[in-house]
Amino acid sequence: MAQGNTVNRRIVLNSRPAGAPTAENFRLETGAVPVPSTGQVLMRTLYLSLDPYMRGRMSEAPSYAEPVAVGDVMVGGTIARVEASRHQDYQAGDLVVGYGGWQDYALANGTNLTRLDTRMPHPSLALGALGMPGFTAYMGLLDIGQPRAGETVVVAAASGAVGSVVGQIARLKGCRVVGIAGGEDKCRFVVDELGFDACIDRRSTGLSQQLATACPKGIDVYFENVGGAVFDAVLPLLNVSARVPLCGLIAHYNDTDLPPGPDRLGLLTRTLLTRRIKMQGFIIFDDYGPRYGEFLSQMSTWLKVGKVKFREDLVDGLENAPQAFIGLLDGRNFGKLIIRVGND
Amino acid sequence: MAQGNTVNRRIVLNSRPAGAPTAENFRLETGAVPVPSTGQVLMRTLYLSLDPYMRGRMSEAPSYAEPVAVGDVMVGGTIARVEASRHQDYQAGDLVVGYGGWQDYALANGTNLTRLDTRMPHPSLALGALGMPGFTAYMGLLDIGQPRAGETVVVAAASGAVGSVVGQIARLKGCRVVGIAGGEDKCRFVVDELGFDACIDRRSTGLSQQLATACPKGIDVYFENVGGAVFDAVLPLLNVSARVPLCGLIAHYNDTDLPPGPDRLGLLTRTLLTRRIKMQGFIIFDDYGPRYGEFLSQMSTWLKVGKVKFREDLVDGLENAPQAFIGLLDGRNFGKLIIRVGND
Repeated sequence: MAQGNTVNRRIVLNSRPAGAPTAENFRLETGAVPVPSTGQVLMRTLYLSLDPYMRGRMSEAPSYAEPVAVGDVMVGGTIARVEASRHQDYQAGDLVVGYGGWQDYALANGTNLTRLDTRMPHPSLALGALGMPGFTAYMGLLDIGQPRAGETVVVAAASGAVGSVVGQIARLKGCRVVGIAGGEDKCRFVVDELGFDACIDRRSTGLSQQLATACPKGIDVYFENVGGAVFDAVLPLLNVSARVPLCGLIAHYNDTDLPPGPDRLGLLTRTLLTRRIKMQGFIIFDDYGPRYGEFLSQMSTWLKVGKVKFREDLVDGLENAPQAFIGLLDGRNFGKLIIRVGND
Repeated sequence: MAQGNTVNRRIVLNSRPAGAPTAENFRLETGAVPVPSTGQVLMRTLYLSLDPYMRGRMSEAPSYAEPVAVGDVMVGGTIARVEASRHQDYQAGDLVVGYGGWQDYALANGTNLTRLDTRMPHPSLALGALGMPGFTAYMGLLDIGQPRAGETVVVAAASGAVGSVVGQIARLKGCRVVGIAGGEDKCRFVVDELGFDACIDRRSTGLSQQLATACPKGIDVYFENVGGAVFDAVLPLLNVSARVPLCGLIAHYNDTDLPPGPDRLGLLTRTLLTRRIKMQGFIIFDDYGPRYGEFLSQMSTWLKVGKVKFREDLVDGLENAPQAFIGLLDGRNFGKLIIRVGND
C-alpha cells in the first residue's frame, strides 16, 4: 500500500524490545489524515530519517530523551511538503524539515519545524550531511576533538552518516584518518571514494593488531559512535592528551545486561588520568543548536565543491522502515539510511 | 639519626610493591654529601612533600611519569636551603623549591628549581596550598570543572591537600559543596573549619544514599581524586552536562588485578553519552604550567585574607617518611602530609 491522500499509515511501537528489536516490536496502523487546528500545519512525509538513537527511544531506560510510549508513532526526522496550513509562518506547498515520525501525515505546531534552506541541493540532504548527522560530525570533531594537522584521527562506522563526514573533515584539517567499517566493500569505499588514509574491517580477525599497525603514532582523536570491541581496540592506543567526542554507542544499544567481568571501569578512568584524556558526551542540537547556521554554510560549500562526499542508502516505502531500522543496528545499511515515504 | 652536615641519608626504592607498599619496599642508606660540579647547586632539604602520585612511580606499569628504578632515591618535591652553588642564578643561603627527593642533600642543575616566591607566608606552603596540590585544585576545578553559582560540587578526600582547596574555591564561586572524607573528625573539620555545606564519612554505611540526600539537585561537578566506591556512589547522581576533572585515583593505586565483574566500562561510557558529561584527566604542571603565576597571585590573596584555609600534617624526620607515606595511601594523614627533614 503506497502513500495516498485520504489514509494515514503510521508505524507505532507495538512492544518494547528485549535486546535487538524484531518486526513484532512495530505495528503498521492506518487512520484518517489528521486535520490542522489553528496554529497547526499538516505535513505529508517525503523522506524519513532512520538513525541509531531511535533504539534508545524504544526502551524505558532513562536516556537523553523521553521514550516513545507503547502504541505511539515512532519518532523521527522528516522532510515533508506542507499540505495545509493554519500557521501564519507556513503555506501549503512549503518544503519543510521537522519531526513528523514514521507516518505519511503529521501535524506540527511550528516547534522544531523549519522551511528547507535554499542551500539544500536536494531535500534528503537535510536529514544527512546537512542535518543532524553532519552537524554531529562537524561539532563533535571540531569543537570537542580539536584535531590538529599531523595528528591521527580514528573513526568507527566510517562509511555511515556521521563517521564518513568526521573522516573527511579530519582529512581537510590535515590529519591522518583511519576508519573502521563492517565489510570489505565499505572499507574500499571509505579509502577510494572518501579519501581516508586507511580503513579496517571490524569483522576481520586481529582488529587490535590491525589498528595498531594503521596508527603507528597512536591515536589523538577517537570519534566514538560505536563502543564495544572497537573501543576496546582503541583504548590502549590513545595518546597523551587525546580527545574522545562521544555521540553514540551503537554496539551497546541492544544490550540487556552488563557483560561479564572483570570490571574495567577503573581501567578506563586510570587511562583517562594517566594519559590526560578528555572524553565528552554530547547531543548535537541540545549542546550546539545556535551554531547550526555556521555549520550549514561551511558544509554546503564543502559539498558543492566536492570536498565532502555523502552516500545515501535510500529504501522505498514506509512499510519497510522496521526491517531497514533493524538492519541499521546490525550495520546492514551502506551510507545514510533514509526511507522514501512519498513522491513529491 | 638526625640531619648532619657530613652524611647524606637517603631513602631508596628497595623493591617494587605488590599491592599496598610496606616498609620493606624502602631502604635507608647513608653516603657522603655530594659536591656540586659546574652549573650545579647543592641543596639541603628542609621539607619533603609526600603525595599519592608517588605510588605510581614505585611500579613499572606505564603511568604519566617514569618509574623510580630499584635502588634509586624516591622522588619528591622539596623545600631546601642552598648550601653551595656553582650555578650562576643561585647563591648559598637561597631558599628554593625543587625536586630533591627523599634525602638530606641533593644536587640540582637549575631545571625544575625556583627560588621561593616572596609571597610565601611560610616555606612549606610551597608544597601545599601554593604548590602542586593547590594548583591542581585551582585549575582542575576552574578550568575543567567550570563551576557556576548554585551548582552542586562534590569533592572526595575533602580534608586533604587537594580536596580541601577545591571545596573552598567552589564555595567562593557560590556553589553548594559536599565533601566526602574518611572519619568523623575529618568531616567535622571540613564543615566547621573549611565551610563546606555537608560532608559524608566514606566509612559509614549507606554512602550512596547519604550522598543522594546531600545532593538533592544532583551533582554538576565531581572533582575526582579517589575512584572506587566513592565514584560508584557519584556516577548515578551526575547531572546532564556534568564535568568530572580527574587528577587522581588513590583508591586504585594499590590494585594488582582488575576487580571481578560485571564489566561496567560500557555503563560509564553510556552515562557520559546520555548525560553529555565531560570527564578529563590532567597532570597539573604538564597541562597548566604557564598559568602557575596567575594561580599563585590569586591563592596568595585568598590565604592572606582567610578565604582559604590549609591544614598541614607535619611529620618530623626523614626516617619516618616510609610509614607516613604508607599511611597516606590508607587515609591516615589529616591535611597535607609533609616531612620536616631538617631545621633551618
